[in-house]
Amino acid sequence: MIKVGIVGGTGYTGSELLRLLVQHPHTDLVAVTSRGEAGVRLDAYFPQLRGYTDLAFSTPDQAGLSGCDLVFFATPNGTAMGQAAQLLAAGARVIDLAADFRLDDVAVWEHWYGMRHAAPELVADAVYGLPEVNRDAIRGARLVANPGCYPTAVTLGLLPLVESGLVDTDRLIADVKSGVSGAGRKASAGLLMAEVGESFKAYSVAGHRHQPEICANIRRATGRDIGLTFVPHLVPMVRGIEATLYAPLREGQSVDAAGLHTLFAERYAHEPFVDVVPPEAPLETRSVRGTNLCRLSATEPLGAGMLVIQSVIDNLVKGAAGQAVQNMNLMFGLSEQTGLTAPALAP
Amino acid sequence: MIKVGIVGGTGYTGSELLRLLVQHPHTDLVAVTSRGEAGVRLDAYFPQLRGYTDLAFSTPDQAGLSGCDLVFFATPNGTAMGQAAQLLAAGARVIDLAADFRLDDVAVWEHWYGMRHAAPELVADAVYGLPEVNRDAIRGARLVANPGCYPTAVTLGLLPLVESGLVDTDRLIADVKSGVSGAGRKASAGLLMAEVGESFKAYSVAGHRHQPEICANIRRATGRDIGLTFVPHLVPMVRGIEATLYAPLREGQSVDAAGLHTLFAERYAHEPFVDVVPPEAPLETRSVRGTNLCRLSATEPLGAGMLVIQSVIDNLVKGAAGQAVQNMNLMFGLSEQTGLTAPALAP
Amino acid sequence: MIKVGIVGGTGYTGSELLRLLVQHPHTDLVAVTSRGEAGVRLDAYFPQLRGYTDLAFSTPDQAGLSGCDLVFFATPNGTAMGQAAQLLAAGARVIDLAADFRLDDVAVWEHWYGMRHAAPELVADAVYGLPEVNRDAIRGARLVANPGCYPTAVTLGLLPLVESGLVDTDRLIADVKSGVSGAGRKASAGLLMAEVGESFKAYSVAGHRHQPEICANIRRATGRDIGLTFVPHLVPMVRGIEATLYAPLREGQSVDAAGLHTLFAERYAHEPFVDVVPPEAPLETRSVRGTNLCRLSATEPLGAGMLVIQSVIDNLVKGAAGQAVQNMNLMFGLSEQTGLTAPALAP
Amino acid sequence: MIKVGIVGGTGYTGSELLRLLVQHPHTDLVAVTSRGEAGVRLDAYFPQLRGYTDLAFSTPDQAGLSGCDLVFFATPNGTAMGQAAQLLAAGARVIDLAADFRLDDVAVWEHWYGMRHAAPELVADAVYGLPEVNRDAIRGARLVANPGCYPTAVTLGLLPLVESGLVDTDRLIADVKSGVSGAGRKASAGLLMAEVGESFKAYSVAGHRHQPEICANIRRATGRDIGLTFVPHLVPMVRGIEATLYAPLREGQSVDAAGLHTLFAERYAHEPFVDVVPPEAPLETRSVRGTNLCRLSATEPLGAGMLVIQSVIDNLVKGAAGQAVQNMNLMFGLSEQTGLTAPALAP
Repeated sequence: MIKVGIVGGTGYTGSELLRLLVQHPHTDLVAVTSRGEAGVRLDAYFPQLRGYTDLAFSTPDQAGLSGCDLVFFATPNGTAMGQAAQLLAAGARVIDLAADFRLDDVAVWEHWYGMRHAAPELVADAVYGLPEVNRDAIRGARLVANPGCYPTAVTLGLLPLVESGLVDTDRLIADVKSGVSGAGRKASAGLLMAEVGESFKAYSVAGHRHQPEICANIRRATGRDIGLTFVPHLVPMVRGIEATLYAPLREGQSVDAAGLHTLFAERYAHEPFVDVVPPEAPLETRSVRGTNLCRLSATEPLGAGMLVIQSVIDNLVKGAAGQAVQNMNLMFGLSEQTGLTAPALAP
Repeated sequence: MIKVGIVGGTGYTGSELLRLLVQHPHTDLVAVTSRGEAGVRLDAYFPQLRGYTDLAFSTPDQAGLSGCDLVFFATPNGTAMGQAAQLLAAGARVIDLAADFRLDDVAVWEHWYGMRHAAPELVADAVYGLPEVNRDAIRGARLVANPGCYPTAVTLGLLPLVESGLVDTDRLIADVKSGVSGAGRKASAGLLMAEVGESFKAYSVAGHRHQPEICANIRRATGRDIGLTFVPHLVPMVRGIEATLYAPLREGQSVDAAGLHTLFAERYAHEPFVDVVPPEAPLETRSVRGTNLCRLSATEPLGAGMLVIQSVIDNLVKGAAGQAVQNMNLMFGLSEQTGLTAPALAP
Repeated sequence: MIKVGIVGGTGYTGSELLRLLVQHPHTDLVAVTSRGEAGVRLDAYFPQLRGYTDLAFSTPDQAGLSGCDLVFFATPNGTAMGQAAQLLAAGARVIDLAADFRLDDVAVWEHWYGMRHAAPELVADAVYGLPEVNRDAIRGARLVANPGCYPTAVTLGLLPLVESGLVDTDRLIADVKSGVSGAGRKASAGLLMAEVGESFKAYSVAGHRHQPEICANIRRATGRDIGLTFVPHLVPMVRGIEATLYAPLREGQSVDAAGLHTLFAERYAHEPFVDVVPPEAPLETRSVRGTNLCRLSATEPLGAGMLVIQSVIDNLVKGAAGQAVQNMNLMFGLSEQTGLTAPALAP
Repeated sequence: MIKVGIVGGTGYTGSELLRLLVQHPHTDLVAVTSRGEAGVRLDAYFPQLRGYTDLAFSTPDQAGLSGCDLVFFATPNGTAMGQAAQLLAAGARVIDLAADFRLDDVAVWEHWYGMRHAAPELVADAVYGLPEVNRDAIRGARLVANPGCYPTAVTLGLLPLVESGLVDTDRLIADVKSGVSGAGRKASAGLLMAEVGESFKAYSVAGHRHQPEICANIRRATGRDIGLTFVPHLVPMVRGIEATLYAPLREGQSVDAAGLHTLFAERYAHEPFVDVVPPEAPLETRSVRGTNLCRLSATEPLGAGMLVIQSVIDNLVKGAAGQAVQNMNLMFGLSEQTGLTAPALAP
């Protein structure tokens, strides 16, 4: 059994980690910390966990995290970078579900996150936890930077195209849409249901921190610098991300529908959590709700030279906690799918 | 392995059965019939099942249902009663998720369902599949009438009160609210999202068929005839039922908060799928989403002599497919919770 | 033109007042105060007002409220009671959309609202602003207590029954459901869309402050003390209240469907904002969305002696800002429907 | 008073026309036809109209449409083309809210709509009813083709860019999202709330009929042929369209934020129903709910050479019935805003 601790378990990535871990056959949940809720039972805070755990939240110092085999940080950005070194030194491994170790260029990170990085010396050792790109490195990692939700959906959709050389990578577009749980569980008038229900909007159009993360992913995987316009939108639903990606064929290149499907199908043929769907099939976020799957579909509308990729994930699973469990499975030599095999909840 | 067939797998109870059965360790799904979709792969019709089954829908005659150990009917009312006898004769057992065998009084059934009953001779042998009342009979049953969604939520909430003698059973009220999946997956303008989204209404106020089913349940369990006013409402969400039940204390009776909680907690102490929640805890439908649980809470507002019971279930699970699997587990000597242990998907 | 000021215009009752007042032909909006947003244009804060006003929020001392003919308080409970006396002394009239003057028993008010009343001497002069009960008093009032949203829907539904003597008034039940805008526009994790979307729950089951307000309304109108169980619920939609009311016929009383409809139709025959709908017609909250209407329907399910009343309003209009404008129209001798005649936005 | 008839008033464009016309000061609603609902009162079919009209649906032959000054077709595609000639001959004017007269190239129309055009001789006389492009022609038109919902949002967003010559018009992208009322009020399992609630998807990715309509609009207005990739998506809400448009700056062109805003602001300076919003302001569909406004915002994210335009409308108003009333106002010499001045219903 892997002894697991969670720092900051009161948000949505924390509660989703709990949902997955209480079902996982090879983990032993030792501690979940929360300064604000210390002493409160997890199942009083999250009633859906009644019957699944007797644990209560503890303060960080009570928690004995350094005795854990693995510590997940389900905290706001800027927390893990202050505590990871000590845990690593004590022999624990760390998966940060926030952004602290996602960008290897510390200056770029500091620009987008608006704070000084507290542990720049750890950044080089951190492994970006996207198994479809980094599986081997993750297996041996001691510190994993779990990817952002949008970057997961977009990177998996763009990779086969960029790798193939089919498209002009200077003018890529990612028009992405997320359910409201992606914004986290913080008291904020702007995320009240009366504000975001029955309405739709783009946000952060001028620039969003997931744009450099995606560009860094593609660079890491392919050595290429891409030009990417990234516009996120808020959907009046709780879970799910859909990314519609646009990539113009390079001058002189062409591809037919079957070839385009094959390009994706072959790239992900051995991936347990990427499912390439035929272009005529519907692709909706509910088809991955509650699962660690990314479903992809590729089309060239009207044969007009612009490829359109659809990518759907559950932002809390493949976009956060599920991918973290997938990374844990890899790090501890388990089958990658352990604890992640249930089908989607649809409708 | 239990060889299982499903008749009519294209609706929501059918798809939910499929979701549960593809994960069940002791079933072998042999056939799913649909006249309209025969030949279509299940995972083309329900994309969320991609990767979980290679089966295609078959016509009833191709399906070889009589060779099954168990056949579920996930059909409209009036179908199972025409086919059950033949399957039973062939040695299969049957669970009907529709209403054909729920009422033991055939005349009452014919009144509410507006058709002649095709197999009145089977009605007496059918066992009403509410394990919290009928567990032993279900174990030995060959034909199980799976309860309606509202009757499950309401019966479990009323039972401890009626059994206790605390309340006046002539003036019981069930104000129940359901997500839209309860209405099924039939093309109907009245259930379009543009009709029922962002709106709330009562329906069938003059009388609803689940009222006599609930009364029959209480009679079966306690020998008592109750007076029940039952008003269903439609909630702009997909899954979930909440029932708020009102029962006046009998003249001269009283109960304090702890006693009221204990009454429920003791009644359901050994029930794996009924969870009695302290009165001060929130009780929301999402806390049971995707699970086979019924969560209950009991209060006497302002000490004014009117008991208020809240009951929440997932209408597609404990209200339909999950309860059917629970019944199957009982009928085939498996642990009652087999395949039904995942926690709720919340948020 | 009526010179109008609004204290506290950044919440939902405030924004809804603004929506109605910018269209009202006889008002001149002089000032809207907000300490937090002083200097910000209304249409920057509420983009839907672009093109309708050039006003900016002002601080209370800049606002010149005492020069207004009428000041609306769209503030949290406990604000108007501290400022009303001074405005009244300066010759302004006041409508409080919060609860400060709704209960004439100050001790009861202090119990439910958990604070000392700052202006008990004004309570006796305040007129409860439900025109269907108090029209004449409102016309002459200087201080109007605008009713709560739930009390409006419930009182209008119960009144004809209580006045008629048909029902046993000791065991009345109001099972009420509200969209999330009823909880106001305050940053609160519990009202995030990710918390309340796709879920349904009862809340404040042990007791809610609108219960004594409803009882006081009925007492004021009929002289009768009623026994009322009141349970509110939260619906995953933005606007709308539906109240389902249960009233047992008194021993020996009976009424047929036509008589029941007539009882309501006659009671409200001359009311411009109460519409009694035939019992067979659907009654959904969207049919009153954006309007000042209360629609009512009365039924006796299965002839079983329990009357069921459905009542729908838009919580922000007839339940708040629209009723406040209706009261203003009465106070200033205008036609009661001025500015309130647009039909519902449905779907 | 303009004598107005509506053919096919049982869908969403029909009900929205009714909502607007019952408030319009210069129209007299003479007849609304529906074969299926003939004899049924409008306010029985649409309960939100109770109190606003005493009219009942009539059959086409009873309706006396040829005596009307104006007939709206709120029918499926393919209906108006069969009946317009006769009405025009009788002296009525016609506005078709469906697609029959939107494309001046009949062959293209027949390709996309999959039927023969029944009145190709009328196509040349029909005026495309987008006032921001065609105002003068609309004033004199006898037959107006009311624009599609997506084409309205997209055309208004692209026009200033294409007219300016700033952008490369070969690689334009329109990623558009619509609430479910855009799909109409037809019984269809795919539009049930249980199918489309809490989920998000793209659809018709391979090609959608609004793509050629948009291209034709731009050609008509600017003489230019554009290359446009158009991908529609379905949002789990009832009303509203958001279009996010992507246009690469032409080689050598540049524009700063102020210049970009000015380009749009000046283009629409005199348009009563187009509101250009500063780039930093939020732009959400609810800010135009129930109104005839199109709100636009223009940005160049990260100064990277890709312009991003956001455009929001209410699909049933500016995208359908409101624009039809705007066209009527122009055709009959009324102020263009008559009956269309109410602010948005938000929240």
